[in-house]
Amino acid sequence: MNRLRTVPRLGIALVIVVAALVAVASCGGGQKAGVAAGADLKALMLARGLTEEDVTAALKTFTPTGKRDEFLLFASGGHGGNMIVIGVPSMRILKYIGVFTPEPWQGYGFDQETQDVLKGGSPAGHMLTWGDMHHPAFSETNADYDGQFIFANDKANARIAVIDLRDFATKQIVQSGLIMNDHGGTFVTPNTEYVIETAQQAAPLGGVYAPISEYNDKYRGAQIFWKFDRATGRIVKEESWAVELPPYMQDLADAGKGVSDGWAFCNSVNTERATGGLQEGKPPLESGASQNDMDFLHVFNWRKAEAVVKAGKTKTIAGMRVIALETAIAEGLLAFIPEPKSPHGVDVAPNGNDIVVSGKLDTHATVYDFGKIKALMEAGTHEGKDPYGVPILPFRESIRGQVEIGLGPLHTQFDDKGFCYTSIFLESKVAKWSLADLTLIDKTSVHYNIGHISAAEGDALHPKGKYLVAMNKWAIDRFNPVGPLLPQNFQLLDISGDKMQVIYDMPLPLGEPHYAQMISVDKLKPIDMYTPVGMNPVTMSADPHATLSEENVRVERKADGVHVYMTLVRSHLNPDIIEVKQGDRVHIHATSLEQALDATHGLCIDMYNVNLSIEPGKVCNVSFTADRAGVFPYYCTEFCSALHLEMAGYLLVKPS
Amino acid sequence: MNRLRTVPRLGIALVIVVAALVAVASCGGGQKAGVAAGADLKALMLARGLTEEDVTAALKTFTPTGKRDEFLLFASGGHGGNMIVIGVPSMRILKYIGVFTPEPWQGYGFDQETQDVLKGGSPAGHMLTWGDMHHPAFSETNADYDGQFIFANDKANARIAVIDLRDFATKQIVQSGLIMNDHGGTFVTPNTEYVIETAQQAAPLGGVYAPISEYNDKYRGAQIFWKFDRATGRIVKEESWAVELPPYMQDLADAGKGVSDGWAFCNSVNTERATGGLQEGKPPLESGASQNDMDFLHVFNWRKAEAVVKAGKTKTIAGMRVIALETAIAEGLLAFIPEPKSPHGVDVAPNGNDIVVSGKLDTHATVYDFGKIKALMEAGTHEGKDPYGVPILPFRESIRGQVEIGLGPLHTQFDDKGFCYTSIFLESKVAKWSLADLTLIDKTSVHYNIGHISAAEGDALHPKGKYLVAMNKWAIDRFNPVGPLLPQNFQLLDISGDKMQVIYDMPLPLGEPHYAQMISVDKLKPIDMYTPVGMNPVTMSADPHATLSEENVRVERKADGVHVYMTLVRSHLNPDIIEVKQGDRVHIHATSLEQALDATHGLCIDMYNVNLSIEPGKVCNVSFTADRAGVFPYYCTEFCSALHLEMAGYLLVKPS
Repeated sequence: MNRLRTVPRLGIALVIVVAALVAVASCGGGQKAGVAAGADLKALMLARGLTEEDVTAALKTFTPTGKRDEFLLFASGGHGGNMIVIGVPSMRILKYIGVFTPEPWQGYGFDQETQDVLKGGSPAGHMLTWGDMHHPAFSETNADYDGQFIFANDKANARIAVIDLRDFATKQIVQSGLIMNDHGGTFVTPNTEYVIETAQQAAPLGGVYAPISEYNDKYRGAQIFWKFDRATGRIVKEESWAVELPPYMQDLADAGKGVSDGWAFCNSVNTERATGGLQEGKPPLESGASQNDMDFLHVFNWRKAEAVVKAGKTKTIAGMRVIALETAIAEGLLAFIPEPKSPHGVDVAPNGNDIVVSGKLDTHATVYDFGKIKALMEAGTHEGKDPYGVPILPFRESIRGQVEIGLGPLHTQFDDKGFCYTSIFLESKVAKWSLADLTLIDKTSVHYNIGHISAAEGDALHPKGKYLVAMNKWAIDRFNPVGPLLPQNFQLLDISGDKMQVIYDMPLPLGEPHYAQMISVDKLKPIDMYTPVGMNPVTMSADPHATLSEENVRVERKADGVHVYMTLVRSHLNPDIIEVKQGDRVHIHATSLEQALDATHGLCIDMYNVNLSIEPGKVCNVSFTADRAGVFPYYCTEFCSALHLEMAGYLLVKPS
Repeated sequence: MNRLRTVPRLGIALVIVVAALVAVASCGGGQKAGVAAGADLKALMLARGLTEEDVTAALKTFTPTGKRDEFLLFASGGHGGNMIVIGVPSMRILKYIGVFTPEPWQGYGFDQETQDVLKGGSPAGHMLTWGDMHHPAFSETNADYDGQFIFANDKANARIAVIDLRDFATKQIVQSGLIMNDHGGTFVTPNTEYVIETAQQAAPLGGVYAPISEYNDKYRGAQIFWKFDRATGRIVKEESWAVELPPYMQDLADAGKGVSDGWAFCNSVNTERATGGLQEGKPPLESGASQNDMDFLHVFNWRKAEAVVKAGKTKTIAGMRVIALETAIAEGLLAFIPEPKSPHGVDVAPNGNDIVVSGKLDTHATVYDFGKIKALMEAGTHEGKDPYGVPILPFRESIRGQVEIGLGPLHTQFDDKGFCYTSIFLESKVAKWSLADLTLIDKTSVHYNIGHISAAEGDALHPKGKYLVAMNKWAIDRFNPVGPLLPQNFQLLDISGDKMQVIYDMPLPLGEPHYAQMISVDKLKPIDMYTPVGMNPVTMSADPHATLSEENVRVERKADGVHVYMTLVRSHLNPDIIEVKQGDRVHIHATSLEQALDATHGLCIDMYNVNLSIEPGKVCNVSFTADRAGVFPYYCTEFCSALHLEMAGYLLVKPS
């Protein structure tokens, strides 16, 4: 692809380099180094088959030792269940954050605190050990990212996670008990009043049973508005609520901003209400759900819904307050608008008035006009109702217009100059078009099967432009083969000029990202250690079991077992010998006394599956039953000093 | 560091670029593109603060879309428990391979087959869900990497894993039951007859209890020789054996090659036999284990040991044949040689005769001479015995010489020109020195606290030179801050010239690598799909539960539960509706009918923690108990087509 297009230019590139050498050969002071440099450049381009375009791309992305990236991209890890933090423009992965899946390097899901976080979202009697992370969303202040928190959903189990960007760690996971999976989540309102989650596959609300034959009557969708308390950094389930919806596949959502603040929007597919049934000779969902030319854009007046909830006009399902569909209709807080075939993305433009929808079986980006929609709803104008009585606004009267951009458009992001960027799946392209006059400006090929795209703060009130990442689902031939399971391919595009340029291919080594948000690094203020010593990482306050000095190291036998108050500091663990009796319940309370940047310790106990990551100042608590007699070494799992191998001890379990 | 050194050269770089512009302005055909290119280059260097040296580094590492890397680096993931595959020189991570830790993106530890692999190495009654991977080792043929398998150890639980490089997947994990943890593993003999594992923290062999007061009498070390069967690609425990050792901390090992084929070597620390005991007022291990000026290089004649085992002169502990220490001494297959303070690496040079050891509390690389060692052992010459009767060969008569290289030397690798490269921890430097005349050639700074290093096939019979990776343990200020837990920093060095040049900084986003091996890509022959359809990925043969066409899709109720024979192909699951009764045991046998590159499907079932990755042609089996009534959506977790959202179905669990 690119290669074929650019190889002919190699000749030109060399002419330039040779010219440079001639010029340089007589440029005085710089001569010696200059010739060397010129020679290097020519030799390197030849040796590595680099075109002039490649050299430009290399210099736009290469980030020398010690230099920082300008943006950080936070990508969902798909069914890897983690979040991926990537520097832009270097496209180097800086961290995988454990969220829905336990991860031992971070000790995530191994200490008591993070085990409780994971349990928080697990159904009774089932500990979930993975998740399918889809859509990250930064916390916002006045509709711009504020860099304080990031949220993400687990599509497979309808969970929402809260990650604190002070320490890049997961602090809370919630599950409503109302819906079984979600796709349209997470999306936040302009001041993070709510985190929006939308069901995908319809099911009886509350997780009860109903036969598939009763799909139309008993199966439902829902949009959940999770209340977020910024002060505590937690979602408050008691103050959260949902709106019942027809059994369509509600899809991606977005919150209004500016003129549309107080409103929310989501797409839907399968308004056909197909259920599959191949073994009974019915068509598969892929065709059954693709019959209608139009599905429904869902329009919510969430401020009005909030008032309805406060007025107590709700029913309670699985402990959550739900506005019944008939109530939503009666209160006029919900309306539908036809949207072209199998829509995928719904994206509110920075101006707050334009709402861009793309149908993946369509060729257009359709721009809805919030002003028109609001007027139609206030006037009670509609052209009919869906089978559940939801008013359907007239399509033509609801839109500003459409722009033909290609086959299989999906998602749209925005820049700082009034341009829109839409991913085009079937063509494997990115389209750049003008929001003002709805004209196509440029299209460029990506490799391959692009899903979401992410521009710098590209879904916020003030996008930054400059960079866009194409999140390609298939890499195929882009990288060295590594077996049947291939990486995905993130391609970085320079969007600062009139034409877009692909400047980097980045393989995803773990996880299948769906969406990502890109934030300016100056908005992030992470801590570099837990201060003062003795902090609990989940509460971000003093841990009651902290051991603040080696003088306080002790082993205490209590009613609930043996409590070990341990300290770690280069290069010893204290105590370094622990003796218990077989069958004892053992509680380790480990405190790092370090306050030096990057002086992380670990603690593992052989055979007992105990593994902690203890950053400077942090306290970790873990409990286990010493059910096996023997001699079990423990040690610091981090290469913390020249004597890290000697930072070790013994757990002695005496036979009972 | 680098920045300070190179910034002054920026001026020179610009002179050159400007000169290029002047020259190019009159270079005819290429003129327009040329000026543009020159302007780009100048503007980019200024805008991004790139020095001439940076430009060279960028062009040495940047790999354009579709171009391949020349080497693959396989790095251990430390307590992340996985293996990391990195392209060189681009330093892009291509894959995290799940090994000791379950990983849902790959479905590793989620299907029956890989759950069994993980159980294989877990102690009775304890399922280990993480590991501390330290030293990967490629399978070898005639002492060179053959690209067929890679092995790695879990230090925390003394496990060894076998990874098949046909599909980059873990096929076997074994645990001896003899030792509790290991550090000196894995290392292979020149034709992969054996995979060597060496205990670190001494303990009673076989996992039994003994009080710490009996350390000298009852605690022991061991070196295990795991027999590998290349035909089946499995370790055969019944044909494996071990050598009992004194209770020192045996450390890294290496197998002889060429003239030293048939021999093995390992370091030791804590020949002081310190046990710590801070709570009893004893010194911590870090100082207790650092008293002696010399520790012991262990020398094994493994061919002789193999004969001793075949002769039945062994005792059996935990089901493994062990050559008792006294037998090893009597048979003359074990000897010690003093080695300078707290040695870390022992590395056999390509010539097979020189054995390089570095003491981390020393300043030298010491080069032992295998010819001298062998002669001394054959002559029975020794200068004394250790407390356990092991003969100690004279130090001076055993070495070729020493080279002073710096403070805290650790590990040594080799290139194709007779040079050695040694990591120097306390100085954060890499030293290049000549093996022939034992002289220091060059030293360069790395950032920071370097542990292991890895040169291209740098520990094989025929190293490739060209590239070396410095595995730095602390990144400190190298990258954008991402909270208290920082990435490690791999720095790529160009070692093709006289002076070494750092050309790339790569953050490690997950895991703390210890060692890595770098292999030429032409030695790897991975499969790109499982062919024919219906292959079991662990046995790499036809799966008895495969469903080879949609005609064969069926749900069968048997004595052990409900068996679902499912197929996946774009874009539907068949069956797409499954009905069972609450309490049923459900067995899913899922077959991908795809045979297109990169057409991977996934299968998850909401709330039941079921998650599979099903690459083209692969069969996955998983079982669970449907203990919760309700409607549970399932779907393909991969973005496999434009209609991937519709590739879904329902599991209906009828209340009992």
